[in-house]
Amino acid sequence: MKFRFTPILLLILFLPAVAQISTDKYQNIAKKIVKTALGEQKGYQLLEDLCNIGPRLSGYPGSYKALDWCAAQLDSLGCDRVWLHSVMVPHWQRGETEQAFLTDSKNTEQSELVVAALGGSIDTPEGGISAQVLEVRSFEELKEKAEQARGKIIFFNRPFDPTVLFTFDGYGGAVKQRTQGAIQAAKVGGVAALVRSVTSLNDNVPHTGLVRYEEGTTQIPAAALGVLDADKLSLALKNDPELEVTVNLSCQNLPEEESFNVIGEIRGNKYPDEVIVVGGHIDAWDKGDGAHDDGAGCIQSIEVLYLLKKLGLQPSRTIRCVLFTDEEQHQTGAKAYGYYASYTSEKHLAAIESDRGAFTPRGFNVTADSSIINNMQAWLPYLKNASIEWITKGGSGSDIAKIKNATALIGYVPDGQRYFDFHHSANDVFEAVHPRELELGSAAMTILTYLISEEGL
Amino acid sequence: MKFRFTPILLLILFLPAVAQISTDKYQNIAKKIVKTALGEQKGYQLLEDLCNIGPRLSGYPGSYKALDWCAAQLDSLGCDRVWLHSVMVPHWQRGETEQAFLTDSKNTEQSELVVAALGGSIDTPEGGISAQVLEVRSFEELKEKAEQARGKIIFFNRPFDPTVLFTFDGYGGAVKQRTQGAIQAAKVGGVAALVRSVTSLNDNVPHTGLVRYEEGTTQIPAAALGVLDADKLSLALKNDPELEVTVNLSCQNLPEEESFNVIGEIRGNKYPDEVIVVGGHIDAWDKGDGAHDDGAGCIQSIEVLYLLKKLGLQPSRTIRCVLFTDEEQHQTGAKAYGYYASYTSEKHLAAIESDRGAFTPRGFNVTADSSIINNMQAWLPYLKNASIEWITKGGSGSDIAKIKNATALIGYVPDGQRYFDFHHSANDVFEAVHPRELELGSAAMTILTYLISEEGL
Repeated sequence: MKFRFTPILLLILFLPAVAQISTDKYQNIAKKIVKTALGEQKGYQLLEDLCNIGPRLSGYPGSYKALDWCAAQLDSLGCDRVWLHSVMVPHWQRGETEQAFLTDSKNTEQSELVVAALGGSIDTPEGGISAQVLEVRSFEELKEKAEQARGKIIFFNRPFDPTVLFTFDGYGGAVKQRTQGAIQAAKVGGVAALVRSVTSLNDNVPHTGLVRYEEGTTQIPAAALGVLDADKLSLALKNDPELEVTVNLSCQNLPEEESFNVIGEIRGNKYPDEVIVVGGHIDAWDKGDGAHDDGAGCIQSIEVLYLLKKLGLQPSRTIRCVLFTDEEQHQTGAKAYGYYASYTSEKHLAAIESDRGAFTPRGFNVTADSSIINNMQAWLPYLKNASIEWITKGGSGSDIAKIKNATALIGYVPDGQRYFDFHHSANDVFEAVHPRELELGSAAMTILTYLISEEGL
Repeated sequence: MKFRFTPILLLILFLPAVAQISTDKYQNIAKKIVKTALGEQKGYQLLEDLCNIGPRLSGYPGSYKALDWCAAQLDSLGCDRVWLHSVMVPHWQRGETEQAFLTDSKNTEQSELVVAALGGSIDTPEGGISAQVLEVRSFEELKEKAEQARGKIIFFNRPFDPTVLFTFDGYGGAVKQRTQGAIQAAKVGGVAALVRSVTSLNDNVPHTGLVRYEEGTTQIPAAALGVLDADKLSLALKNDPELEVTVNLSCQNLPEEESFNVIGEIRGNKYPDEVIVVGGHIDAWDKGDGAHDDGAGCIQSIEVLYLLKKLGLQPSRTIRCVLFTDEEQHQTGAKAYGYYASYTSEKHLAAIESDRGAFTPRGFNVTADSSIINNMQAWLPYLKNASIEWITKGGSGSDIAKIKNATALIGYVPDGQRYFDFHHSANDVFEAVHPRELELGSAAMTILTYLISEEGL
């Protein structure tokens, strides 16, 4: 009998070879991406430039300079399209006056307390608010002591739990007193809220962040207190419960302003209408450079496009870098992009967010169907080149979470042990970022982006 | 038929329950170990004390203070036995004079070069050595240019490869010029060796380390040059190949001295003659505090015993903390302990070394039979509480490698991206260690030690 190859037989015979070539191809590409990122350190140079622009909280002059600078970077690396996505953002302005001190009940001694107004806080009357202090560690304790609260400054002194492995859990366990403290304090007649800084570090640098108000509840001023001064105040209150604290803040809530998400993309050459978003948020709290939070995430997202271009990796699907505005206050940038994603005819296949600092890569958290996550885990051998150890089901990130119709929402997870040392404080400067750790994050995101682009989900 | 439980049947019926209890037991213990390490930060306090003692290179006064201090710590935490294991160590002493400068060939300009004598280097004649310079990047290049080498200072300028994922690979690719450079230079008639610092950092802090000599080859002085000054010298040589460099070092090789391994142990209550060693090396280069290299490893090893005691975990096997002397020069401490292990009637079941810095845990490298490594991998769910992701076959550590009859040699592997920023330089100070990262390492080592003690290998 004459033996004839049928097409199907041919396919079977060639399949293992084809798979092998493809595997080697991705290994080679992954290695090239890592070598280029570590060797050039392009992202590290860009981050330094971004950090030199100045504070870029929504509405600040630096925010507009930073948006322009990002658009220029995306343009110069050769994006097929760069555009601005208009959105209205809050404009809270930190004041020149930002001080606090305690005065003992005999009015003989004063001692300074290091504070930073919380973002969104109203100002105090000129000269500040002086009042006795009620210290609590939880809203439950505040409710129990509600009768003692009237006319007092409410001092929320719940520490960041140092014993948990994941610092984000420590943050989660303490941050409510910052976001909700002013509301809860006002409800029991408090006149201001002082909040122990939500940080893993034992220093005296205040960590700011958003304070919320609600309709129907009096707005009262709110400030973060350095951890060492929170301990100092707590000890002083034990010895002298009737001491007074004075808080003086001149911050202001100004009218909303127009801002922009900055968006740049490389169009896919096979499936241009299938989109993979990579992004971070361009606004940052004003005390430091916003280097880890989230300058790094923006730069890594820009670097994904840079590395693809640099290595001549034309993606099959569209890779879109979205630099979200106003994450720190009202997530108006994320909401606007999420709304756009809900009606566009494009398909949002995946979105990858970097907003946990520029530390050594550990893994990716994925919000998607389990079968997709299982398939993605087969890519770990490529991602290990950039120090990625795992891909698991988990929360992605606050900006991309608004893209509700994406097939997979992916949070990049670097090592988290140091993140809250810097977060929202004057510690978060360019010098606190390690070039290799930043670049490995860029490489990890680039490898994953390219794999999704070529293989789908 | 009357049904009778036989002992075997009973065993089968109870086995899953027993396994469950045991699993829960280890999970609870692992969690307690992590919580206690992170909550108390005992090791971080100890490391600060150790770093305050002063330089503890073999033979230095601080080395004896540090040995005494370690013995006192082991004693005070309640070891069953603490002893000193005598060994002769080299005593090289850095000199007060340690300078270099370049002079252009027209003898019109001088410019300083930041240097540090390499450990073990002989001194220069008083007033220093002045000579023209031959720059090379490899021993092969030096051989090719042998005819130009006579009478010159040989400048080894091979950079640390920044593009590799594992910094230990970058170090391995460049360190030979430091250890062997003086020998190779002398063989072609060079009069001194200047070596580009072997570091991943782009600063000007010189990184020292051992230089070797060999019998029959002239000993010439050798010093490390800061990376920025290595670049400066290289550029200057391009413009002016006949410039001269002067190197002036007053270091000395003094007679050998008696030193000690410091050893403390908790005796096993079931198999006291089966020993698990945990250790690091107590000597350190003298430019910084030796905080990462290897104060951290010593403190973590002490903390393993501390945590077991603190949590009332009486081990079945003997847990022995060995703080090796003289790792940085001749490994005489490790050799002496290895020799002891070769003839004692005790069985060395495992040895765990920490000597890669105090960064967030990633994994354990194990030198052992594959079946043992496979079994150990079943413990990863417990070790994940301390951020350990993997257990793989791999090299352990230079001290424990001398315990050739141990069943398993285990190297603790933290994240390595920053290690060579600090290694052997004035950058390696207490302030460069992060408390949480240090403590997670202690916790990881404690969990693994306890599992081996209770379950065997």
